[in-house]
Amino acid sequence: MVTETTGIDGLAAMKAALDRRWKAIFAENVFVHRAARGEISRSLYALYMHETYHYTRHNARNQALVGVMGAGDDAQYQKFCFEHAAEEAGHEHMALHDMRSLDRSVELELAPPLRETTVLIAYLYWVSVQGNPVQRLGYSYWAESCYEYILPMVGQVQKQLGLSEAQMTFFISHAKIDVEHAEEVRAMLARTCRTPEDWATATEVMETSLDLTAGMMRGVCLEYDRLARGETKRADFVLRYDA
Amino acid sequence: MVTETTGIDGLAAMKAALDRRWKAIFAENVFVHRAARGEISRSLYALYMHETYHYTRHNARNQALVGVMGAGDDAQYQKFCFEHAAEEAGHEHMALHDMRSLDRSVELELAPPLRETTVLIAYLYWVSVQGNPVQRLGYSYWAESCYEYILPMVGQVQKQLGLSEAQMTFFISHAKIDVEHAEEVRAMLARTCRTPEDWATATEVMETSLDLTAGMMRGVCLEYDRLARGETKRADFVLRYDA
Amino acid sequence: MVTETTGIDGLAAMKAALDRRWKAIFAENVFVHRAARGEISRSLYALYMHETYHYTRHNARNQALVGVMGAGDDAQYQKFCFEHAAEEAGHEHMALHDMRSLDRSVELELAPPLRETTVLIAYLYWVSVQGNPVQRLGYSYWAESCYEYILPMVGQVQKQLGLSEAQMTFFISHAKIDVEHAEEVRAMLARTCRTPEDWATATEVMETSLDLTAGMMRGVCLEYDRLARGETKRADFVLRYDA
Amino acid sequence: MVTETTGIDGLAAMKAALDRRWKAIFAENVFVHRAARGEISRSLYALYMHETYHYTRHNARNQALVGVMGAGDDAQYQKFCFEHAAEEAGHEHMALHDMRSLDRSVELELAPPLRETTVLIAYLYWVSVQGNPVQRLGYSYWAESCYEYILPMVGQVQKQLGLSEAQMTFFISHAKIDVEHAEEVRAMLARTCRTPEDWATATEVMETSLDLTAGMMRGVCLEYDRLARGETKRADFVLRYDA
Repeated sequence: MVTETTGIDGLAAMKAALDRRWKAIFAENVFVHRAARGEISRSLYALYMHETYHYTRHNARNQALVGVMGAGDDAQYQKFCFEHAAEEAGHEHMALHDMRSLDRSVELELAPPLRETTVLIAYLYWVSVQGNPVQRLGYSYWAESCYEYILPMVGQVQKQLGLSEAQMTFFISHAKIDVEHAEEVRAMLARTCRTPEDWATATEVMETSLDLTAGMMRGVCLEYDRLARGETKRADFVLRYDA
Repeated sequence: MVTETTGIDGLAAMKAALDRRWKAIFAENVFVHRAARGEISRSLYALYMHETYHYTRHNARNQALVGVMGAGDDAQYQKFCFEHAAEEAGHEHMALHDMRSLDRSVELELAPPLRETTVLIAYLYWVSVQGNPVQRLGYSYWAESCYEYILPMVGQVQKQLGLSEAQMTFFISHAKIDVEHAEEVRAMLARTCRTPEDWATATEVMETSLDLTAGMMRGVCLEYDRLARGETKRADFVLRYDA
Repeated sequence: MVTETTGIDGLAAMKAALDRRWKAIFAENVFVHRAARGEISRSLYALYMHETYHYTRHNARNQALVGVMGAGDDAQYQKFCFEHAAEEAGHEHMALHDMRSLDRSVELELAPPLRETTVLIAYLYWVSVQGNPVQRLGYSYWAESCYEYILPMVGQVQKQLGLSEAQMTFFISHAKIDVEHAEEVRAMLARTCRTPEDWATATEVMETSLDLTAGMMRGVCLEYDRLARGETKRADFVLRYDA
Repeated sequence: MVTETTGIDGLAAMKAALDRRWKAIFAENVFVHRAARGEISRSLYALYMHETYHYTRHNARNQALVGVMGAGDDAQYQKFCFEHAAEEAGHEHMALHDMRSLDRSVELELAPPLRETTVLIAYLYWVSVQGNPVQRLGYSYWAESCYEYILPMVGQVQKQLGLSEAQMTFFISHAKIDVEHAEEVRAMLARTCRTPEDWATATEVMETSLDLTAGMMRGVCLEYDRLARGETKRADFVLRYDA
C-alpha cells in the first residue's frame, strides 16, 4: 500500500522537519547558547575543531561505503557517492589547519574522540553499510545545507575570537563548496526516494544524525568544563590557546 | 634495510615484468589462440562478455574500498581511489550493452559467474581491503594499459564477428578513457611506492591478477566447450547468438 | 609512561564506575521510574521486548566480529569471542517468545528498531570492529552482570503483569546463564587489559553502551506515549496487548 | 522449478565429486608425486607448513564471518559457525609448533604468504561474506574429511623425515578432532541445503577451494625449487632445515 510521493513534496517535508529540529537545537543546546552569549573561548573552539577533525575523517569513507554496498545496483547513485567521497577526502585537514592557525606556538596533541563523537561516527557507518541505501542522504541533506542555520553562530565566534576567513577554512570553504553539493543531494533524494518509506528513513537519519551532532556539541562544552576544572587530561593541549 | 627506489626504475621494472607476463599468456592461453585462429564465435564472445560483466560490477567497489581502508591517511591517494571508482561506476552496463547489440532478439539470462571469475573477484577485494594499500595499483596498472597488448586480438574478434565500434563499447570506449587513467596510475605508483617492498607487492598483485584474468579467459573457453557439448546449462542463452 | 594496573584494581574501579552509572540511571530514567510506580503496561513491556529483540539480534554477531578483527592475534581471547557468540546465538528468539507468551492472540508485526535502538546497535558494531580489541569487554562486563541491578525492577514488572518465569525467559534464563559468563568476562578483562589505557577504553565503552541502553529505555517510553496518543503507527500491534 | 533433494542423495553426490577431484589431484599434483617418490625434504615440508600457517590463521575468522553475515537468520547454523570457529581458533600455532619441532636451532622468520596461498585465503573470505550462506560448508566438507585421502601421503612424509606424532600435531591432532567435525558438517549440509541450487553451490565451493589448495601445494614445490636455485629469498630460513 505504498503510494508515490513526489520529490517536491518529500523535500518540502524534510525541510520543514529540519527547520523544527534546528529550532529545538537553538532553543536548548548549550554550545549554541554559549556562542550567542559570546562565551566561546579559543580553547573551547579548538576542542570543537578537535572533534570536528575526528568525525570529518570518516565522512568521505562512509559516503564511499554507500556506493560499495547498497547503492551498487544504481550506477548513477553509486557514481554520486564516489564523487562526493572524492570531494570530501582530506577535509579533516581543514579542521587541523584552523586549529593551527589559532596559534602556531601550540602543538597539536590529538587525543581520541569524545564518546559523543564516537557515537556519531558509529551511526554514520551503520546507516552507510546496511538498510535502505537512500538513508545516508538524510545526513548529507542537513550537513551540506547547514550553513543557512549555523553561519550566524559561526559569525559570532569569528567576531568574538577575531579570526579571519583564512583561519576558518572548515566552515567558510565548506559553505561555498556545499552550495552545489546541497543542490545535488536534493536532486538525488528526489530521484532516489520512491516511496513514503524511503522519505521516512531518509528523514529519520537526518534527524538522528543532527541530534547526535548536537549531542557532540553539548559534549564538547561538558568536556571543556571538565578540562577547565582539571578533571580530565584528554586533549588538554587546547587550554594553551587561552594561556 | 630499505632503500628508496626511484619511481622511474620501479615503473620500468613493472613494465618489463608485465611484458613477460603478457608474452607468456600469448604463448599459452587457449582464448588468445582461438582469437588468433579466428575461432571466437558469437556465443563464445558473449560468454566472455558475461564474465566481464561480473568482474566489472565489482571494480568500482573494490577500488573505492582502498580509499575507505588503507589509503585513508593519504588524502591524495584516497581522492584518487574515489575518483577512479566514480569513473568506473556502471561500466558493467557496457558489457551488457555489447552483448545485447550482438543480437537484440536474444534475451539476456544472466547466470552466476564462472568459478574462475569468482576467484578473480575475491582476490581483488582481498587486496583492496587489507595489506599494503599500494598493492591494488598493481591491478590498475595492467588493467588500464592492457589495450596496447590486447587491441590486436580485439581487432581480430571485431573483424571476425563483423562488429562495429558501437557494438564494442566495453573495449573501445575503455581504450580511450583509460589512456588518461593509465597515466594517473603510473604517477600514483611513482608517488606512493617508497620502498622495494612497495614495488614488489604492487608487482605481485599485477602478476597475480593478470594470471587470474588469463585463467578466467581459459575458463570461458572450457565452459563454452562444455556448453557446446550440452554438459552444462549455465548461461546457455549465449548459444542462441549462433543459432 | 604506561604502568601496569593489576586486574583486581582495574575490575574494582570498573565496578565502582558501574555502580555510579546505574545509580544515575535509577535516579533519572523514566522507564525505571514507571516500573517503580507500577506503570508498565503490557503494551509498554511488549514495546520494550520489541526493541530488545532488535539489539539482541546483533549481539552474537558483533561479539564474533571482535574475534574476526582485533582479537585475532590472541588465540585465547579469539576463542572466548567465538564461544560467547555461540552461546548468545538466537537469544533474540527469547524476546519474541516472551512477547508471544503475553497473549497468543496478538500477532507480532515486527517494525524497524527505534532510532535509539539503532544508535546502540551501531555503536556496538563500531567498538567491535575497530580500536582497542579489549573495548567490547566493557559492554559484556555490564550486560552479563546487569541482573544484580535490574532484577528488582524485573520483579516489579513480573508481579505487576502477573507473568510466570516461563513467560520471562529473556530476563530469567539470561540471569542464570550469565552468572558464569560474567565471571569469564571479568577473568578475560583481568587477563587482557595491560595498561591504564586498556582499562580506560573498556570503562568508556561500558559507560557509553550502558547510557545508550538507558537512552533506549527512555526512547521506549516516549514512543509508547506517541503510540498511545496515536501520533505514530510504528509497532502499533503492541497496543493490542492491553486492548 | 526447484525440487527438493534429499540430504542423503546430496551428500552422496558431493562425496562422488570429491572422490573424482582427489583422484585428479593424486594423478597430476607435483607435491603429491614428490611425496610418493620420497622427495619431500625437511625444507620443502617446512615451506608447506609455512603456507599452512598462513591460510589456517584465517580459517576461524572466515568461518565466524558466515555466522555474522548470511547465516544470521538461522540460529542453529549461526551457532554451528561460531562453535566451529571457536574450535579452530589458534590452530595456526600447531603449524608453527611443527616447524619448530623439526629443528629448534632454526629460528622461524615468517614471510608473507605465497600468491597461491593468498588466492586461497581471498576466496575463502569471499564465499564466507556473500552469496548463498550454505556455500562455505563445501569447504568444511572436504577440509574436515581430508584425512581419508591424505593420511597415506602424510605417513610417507612422516616416515621419510623420521618424525614422531608429537612433531606432526597439525595433521595428526586435526585428523582426530575432525572426525566429529566432519560428521557435524555433513549433518548441517543435509539440514541446510534445500534445493539443487544449494547443493550445487556447496559443491562448487568444495571443488574450487580444493583446487586452490592443490594449487597452493604445487606453488610450494615451485617456490621451493626457486629457493633451491637461489632465485628468491622469501622464507629462505626453511633451507636451514636441511643444512
